[in-house]
Amino acid sequence: MSENSPSMPIARSVDALRTAVRDWRRQGFTVSFVPTMGALHEGHLTLVREAGQRADKVVASVFVNPTQFAAHEDLGTYPRREAEDAALLAGAGCDLLFAPTVGEMYPDGFVTSVAVGGPSQGLETDFRPHFFGGVAVVVAKLLNQVQADVAVFGEKDYQQLMVVRRMARDLDIPTAIVGAPTMRDGHGLALSSRNAYLSEPELDVARCLNGVLAEAAIKAADRRPLAAVERDAYSDLLKAGFERVDYVAVRQADNLAPFPNGVVEAPARILAAAWVGKTRLIDNLAV
Amino acid sequence: MSENSPSMPIARSVDALRTAVRDWRRQGFTVSFVPTMGALHEGHLTLVREAGQRADKVVASVFVNPTQFAAHEDLGTYPRREAEDAALLAGAGCDLLFAPTVGEMYPDGFVTSVAVGGPSQGLETDFRPHFFGGVAVVVAKLLNQVQADVAVFGEKDYQQLMVVRRMARDLDIPTAIVGAPTMRDGHGLALSSRNAYLSEPELDVARCLNGVLAEAAIKAADRRPLAAVERDAYSDLLKAGFERVDYVAVRQADNLAPFPNGVVEAPARILAAAWVGKTRLIDNLAV
Repeated sequence: MSENSPSMPIARSVDALRTAVRDWRRQGFTVSFVPTMGALHEGHLTLVREAGQRADKVVASVFVNPTQFAAHEDLGTYPRREAEDAALLAGAGCDLLFAPTVGEMYPDGFVTSVAVGGPSQGLETDFRPHFFGGVAVVVAKLLNQVQADVAVFGEKDYQQLMVVRRMARDLDIPTAIVGAPTMRDGHGLALSSRNAYLSEPELDVARCLNGVLAEAAIKAADRRPLAAVERDAYSDLLKAGFERVDYVAVRQADNLAPFPNGVVEAPARILAAAWVGKTRLIDNLAV
Repeated sequence: MSENSPSMPIARSVDALRTAVRDWRRQGFTVSFVPTMGALHEGHLTLVREAGQRADKVVASVFVNPTQFAAHEDLGTYPRREAEDAALLAGAGCDLLFAPTVGEMYPDGFVTSVAVGGPSQGLETDFRPHFFGGVAVVVAKLLNQVQADVAVFGEKDYQQLMVVRRMARDLDIPTAIVGAPTMRDGHGLALSSRNAYLSEPELDVARCLNGVLAEAAIKAADRRPLAAVERDAYSDLLKAGFERVDYVAVRQADNLAPFPNGVVEAPARILAAAWVGKTRLIDNLAV
């Protein structure tokens, strides 16, 4: 399908999705997959283009997964604009949009949960304890529904990427999990659907997050004590105008475990979550 | 491969298994799968023959899954006899034996768990709370490893069959889950690898289980109050020589929920677990 196809099909059911993928398989095509919650921005489209480099056909899903939102979170107001998303996907080379209803994904009688220990411990889980349970189930389902050769996830949600990779490996889901670099605006702000919630003054604050992390990453790489690095970054974020910082932490890059000696001794990642007004932002960088 | 092939291959790794299955797929063959814990008897071989009816190629696995045994249970003494099992499988028409090590199934860093509510509640779970967690993970893994069109499970482990079916549906694992009827000896005793633990006098007791359940099933089908039906069956089992009865219960056949009005009002199943000496037996019948 061409880059600007106006006729990208939309599958609403798992059956329709599988029929399309089976057809491609019969013709010998490989398949890649990009799961999203819609409200697409250039970051998502980069994932779609990356997926297009890795397989003959690209499936993207748009599904705002209720099980990864807590009751007080923004499930109801999370931006939904399917027609716009579909046009963006088609333009980025997506061959099929899978956009199931909640009822198709979680029919009556649904009772199964998936828990991933290890990389899901701490960080996001300390503040959104329900989150990775919801992610693990919906991603397990989506991967099994699409049965792609490869699935592409953004490094923007780095802990999620580690959790998904661990789950897919542990459950032997036969889809390779690939991470793609975070896209940023000209000021270093990681692209996120939730950036749409930010006012102009909030945007100015949000754009400081990446710089604070970059500075802390340099100190961490320099083997400075992580407790001090994290404390300084925490107070720098508050000074920059963030109202609350959920965490700033330097962890081992592969399993997100803390460094036992309090200094970086292996590939590392710095991760943070902080609030601007009513909007919670996350970001991370390689150390 | 012929019914009496002496050359059935054995795959020890997921890679070797997948290579074999991929080869068959390329040749256009369909694939069925029978998971076992080995110590095979005629019941297992019936599942293998059933699998052979449903696909061109049959994979069977032999893996004594440690995560479904509690510390005090019989993991260490569970019978292991691979050469004998392999010969029996080949004779029943199995085309490939998958016999992984514990390290292949649960490598270092393994941290994922799968929980199935609904049909896993009560019955076995009241007495083996760890059991279905272990079953759900290993079956999810095996199904994803083999990627068969259909997998055949024995109705002997009826609650397990319902849990596996629910999990496969909830996680969209693309393998159809099929149940096959329980095989029994001439006295009605359900075939089980654990029957090998029974002495002759214990065997006489064990052979009463099916009769007690059959009689209770008739009463239940007659819409007698289930509390009385279950109580009578319970005491009949003790009279027959069982030392302890974990449960005798009549449940809805599809989701194993109790009947809200205490009488059978829909397709039903009677299920029991009881002890003869140190051996725990389970059985069940359609009502």
